[in-house]
Amino acid sequence: MSKYSIGVDFGTLSGRAVLVEIGSGRELASSVFEYPHAVMDRELPDKTRLGVDWALQHPQDYLDVFAHTIPAVMKEAAVKPEDVVGIGIDFTACTILPVKADSTPLCFLDEFKSEPHAYVKLWKHHAAQDKANLLNEVAQKTGQKWLARYGGKISSEWVFPKLMQMLEEAPEVYAAADYIVEAADWVIWFLTGKQNRNSCTAGYKAIWSKRDGYPQESFFKALDQRLEHVVKEKLNCPITPLGSCAGGICDKAAALTGLLPKTAVAVGNVDAHVTMPAVGIDGPNKMLAIMGTSTCHILISREERNVPGMCGCVEDGVYPGFFGYEAGQSCVGDHFQWFIDNCLPAAYWQDAKEQGKNIHVYLREKAQKLAPGESGLLALDWWNGNRSVLVDIDLTGMLLGCTLQTRPEEIYRALIEATAYGTRMIVETFRESGVPVEEFYASGGISQKDPMTMQIYADILNLPIHIAGSTQGPALGSAIFGAVAAGREKGGYDDIFTAAREMGKLRDEIYRPIPENAAVYDKLYAEYRTLHDYFGRGENDVMKRLKAIKKEQSGQA
Amino acid sequence: MSKYSIGVDFGTLSGRAVLVEIGSGRELASSVFEYPHAVMDRELPDKTRLGVDWALQHPQDYLDVFAHTIPAVMKEAAVKPEDVVGIGIDFTACTILPVKADSTPLCFLDEFKSEPHAYVKLWKHHAAQDKANLLNEVAQKTGQKWLARYGGKISSEWVFPKLMQMLEEAPEVYAAADYIVEAADWVIWFLTGKQNRNSCTAGYKAIWSKRDGYPQESFFKALDQRLEHVVKEKLNCPITPLGSCAGGICDKAAALTGLLPKTAVAVGNVDAHVTMPAVGIDGPNKMLAIMGTSTCHILISREERNVPGMCGCVEDGVYPGFFGYEAGQSCVGDHFQWFIDNCLPAAYWQDAKEQGKNIHVYLREKAQKLAPGESGLLALDWWNGNRSVLVDIDLTGMLLGCTLQTRPEEIYRALIEATAYGTRMIVETFRESGVPVEEFYASGGISQKDPMTMQIYADILNLPIHIAGSTQGPALGSAIFGAVAAGREKGGYDDIFTAAREMGKLRDEIYRPIPENAAVYDKLYAEYRTLHDYFGRGENDVMKRLKAIKKEQSGQA
Repeated sequence: MSKYSIGVDFGTLSGRAVLVEIGSGRELASSVFEYPHAVMDRELPDKTRLGVDWALQHPQDYLDVFAHTIPAVMKEAAVKPEDVVGIGIDFTACTILPVKADSTPLCFLDEFKSEPHAYVKLWKHHAAQDKANLLNEVAQKTGQKWLARYGGKISSEWVFPKLMQMLEEAPEVYAAADYIVEAADWVIWFLTGKQNRNSCTAGYKAIWSKRDGYPQESFFKALDQRLEHVVKEKLNCPITPLGSCAGGICDKAAALTGLLPKTAVAVGNVDAHVTMPAVGIDGPNKMLAIMGTSTCHILISREERNVPGMCGCVEDGVYPGFFGYEAGQSCVGDHFQWFIDNCLPAAYWQDAKEQGKNIHVYLREKAQKLAPGESGLLALDWWNGNRSVLVDIDLTGMLLGCTLQTRPEEIYRALIEATAYGTRMIVETFRESGVPVEEFYASGGISQKDPMTMQIYADILNLPIHIAGSTQGPALGSAIFGAVAAGREKGGYDDIFTAAREMGKLRDEIYRPIPENAAVYDKLYAEYRTLHDYFGRGENDVMKRLKAIKKEQSGQA
Repeated sequence: MSKYSIGVDFGTLSGRAVLVEIGSGRELASSVFEYPHAVMDRELPDKTRLGVDWALQHPQDYLDVFAHTIPAVMKEAAVKPEDVVGIGIDFTACTILPVKADSTPLCFLDEFKSEPHAYVKLWKHHAAQDKANLLNEVAQKTGQKWLARYGGKISSEWVFPKLMQMLEEAPEVYAAADYIVEAADWVIWFLTGKQNRNSCTAGYKAIWSKRDGYPQESFFKALDQRLEHVVKEKLNCPITPLGSCAGGICDKAAALTGLLPKTAVAVGNVDAHVTMPAVGIDGPNKMLAIMGTSTCHILISREERNVPGMCGCVEDGVYPGFFGYEAGQSCVGDHFQWFIDNCLPAAYWQDAKEQGKNIHVYLREKAQKLAPGESGLLALDWWNGNRSVLVDIDLTGMLLGCTLQTRPEEIYRALIEATAYGTRMIVETFRESGVPVEEFYASGGISQKDPMTMQIYADILNLPIHIAGSTQGPALGSAIFGAVAAGREKGGYDDIFTAAREMGKLRDEIYRPIPENAAVYDKLYAEYRTLHDYFGRGENDVMKRLKAIKKEQSGQA
């Protein structure tokens, strides 16, 4: 008799549940619910205006995801509640909200309905950059050793800058909040009826580590007198490693979802990190790249190493018992789309239309005919700054090698190659820092839809690339964690490694490096690396000086 | 009673005559005749196939220009032959043909009708690169001091490489030629009935100098035993400085053109160089830029200096008694057109169409709204290599500072700015080499049609820019030289300086640098210069290595 697990993936605009057969990993049903409030970046439901760069969400939407999608997948798959033994979730992060001691979001209370700071601040809420700058400055001045774990910089997207903005702009909301909590943990709190924080978001987004905990009170005091006891006052909850059971479904959640009370619930997780078991990664030194508009790289290792330019290194941050490393490239699919929107001549659109082809497909067909190096072009993939390994948003894109014969498809291919060189730079930086990268896995839209790009990556990395077998990697990964939360006795697993091995899925096809391409790309990568270091490591800071002039001249200085 | 002069400008596809009133410079009539044979780059009139990169012309077309256009302008202006006191011509160069001792082109003879080497080799005949390579190699090895006068490199477009190709591939044509002559000098020979070579093409294209003459016989012998006496055998004719009279119209030419016999004929000239008097330049240190698909810079000085990266420095090469300097940028209008053809999105074409605007005008309107530096972009204008001051065709274009917000008009403006930085590099190199550049003049299509670009040039050069008053600069310049050939006694001038002052024309409007723009551009130019030297002077030869890989990978190696 089969048992099942449900994974729920909370994205930026919708939540998706997938019902998965434990053991086979077969996805029997899936259901999507679009958030009614979507992303609020202009006004609240009552028309209260929001500031520039704000991005809020409404927590009721998350509960509605449970209410709609879980019954839907059980119905579609004709599975009985007693056969669903576990549930896991993953969320965007850092996505946080202020709540009362009983988990009620402040925005649910009448008195705070018109208060923007009472709502969920989405990961891409970018209105706290000045707070991040202050935090980084103080951390540097006071020599905080944790700074190195985050590539030397805390992002404005993360917990403390967002919380500092709330304290400064809405101290009454800050004061009324008994907790400030990641949405990932808040939905688990809803499901189980008790608060439980996961080691992944705590580690990657809230500067927590298993060995040292949060930063010291003296550091927070140096930021703001009122923040001295922020951990005790707003984050006070034990932290549980990924792969643990957060508890059982509470009666209220059972009533909402149709799951049986006490069904096992995995601790919360993050969309990128949770994808590791979905591709079957069961141990260290296997890098997963989630390739979409941007790329996130996840890797676990037995060693804690200081790898320059990572987004974070967190013990238990991906799998229990391992150090989880995260790196990233801030501009991948976005980069290709920019080119198509801004640089593609009318004749190409016309031609694609006449041939009845999607413009990406059309362009790839042309780009695919080029041999490596045939265009003579080389680009630096910094159209949106460089996340890893330089951690510098002020770097900008470069294209070199243009002639009057240069064609659009050559530029397009050069931009794709540039992102692959960027990935190779990350891989080599890990290796040079003592963290081996022996296998390479890819999930996300590009891995599924773009064979040319994947072959280029294989050739440039000179590594075979394994492709995710599910297009719903995060939801599948969450379901696998759900199965681990249930435990072997209930029909699940006792550890994430076995679960990943059995339930994770890869496509049969593997992109294997073509030796003659790899040889040419080795030469081109050497050129990339020289330019990367020349422009990125201070030898010629022209990009930063141009940005400073740009700010002055456009009145943003 | 007014006197008149006629200027005839022989271009790549047509010849144009302009009839000009001496003194006022008023252009009373003009007439264009398109060459019936145009450029022959595939086959001869009798279908004989041509090789790759060949470009020939038929000399009969030049005579037909005289026959059609001179009577036409005299008729249109209702001017009597006795009132036309002089004629001057300018030609593309280096454009050469083999002739008999009586000036008959070999291609006019039945025995050579099907022989490609018997025709005119046009300036852009590019099939002699291997000969140029050999010549440069031998010149370097044997330490020829004249090499420095040509930026260290002789172009494959010039006399000796073309002549060497003829000797190698068609020795019987070479042997049958009593002279090999520039078309500029050949049409003067036709008009006057006697051969006369001008100092401009001899100096810039045939490695001749007033002080040292042609290279020594030992050098030619080192190239090829058979070339030892090439000067005596094929170029044996005295050389006359620009501004001289070549003679009077002979009876045959009088019959063809309707001009009176003995009408004064100026020595031949070159399209760019002849434009100097047309803008009224009457002395040293005033740079003229002829801005079109590419840009040519002409400047005279009392001093002979070794300015790195010039196309040539020739005594009497522009005006008698001065050293004439020529520099160039190989990709200007071509560069902007490349962008429009290859990089402009469909939405822009659509929008321009809806607004009923020419695409250049539409794009300029957008680019014009940007402040200097506002785009954050910087380009190196090497899409077609760098002619001056680096003299390196293997350099390629670069664009830096791109972000996901970068718009097409920003790239377009950056490319325009890059060509202006390139011009400033040339100006500064002259100055640093002891040749002052105090005033700046522009003629050619861009100067006439593109106020935004001209303002950018003024801001970047931090010099007022004077704009040619005639759109037919070369023909007007030729007519001015024609007036000088006539002499004061006949109603013309005794010297080119006075003639230029009186007959040259500028527009009233002057593009003056805007100080706040110039200040920003000073900073941006400093960045350009750093990158120019980094990529162009050997610190990082990535562009050359990429080109080498490109050749290998596209099977051209």
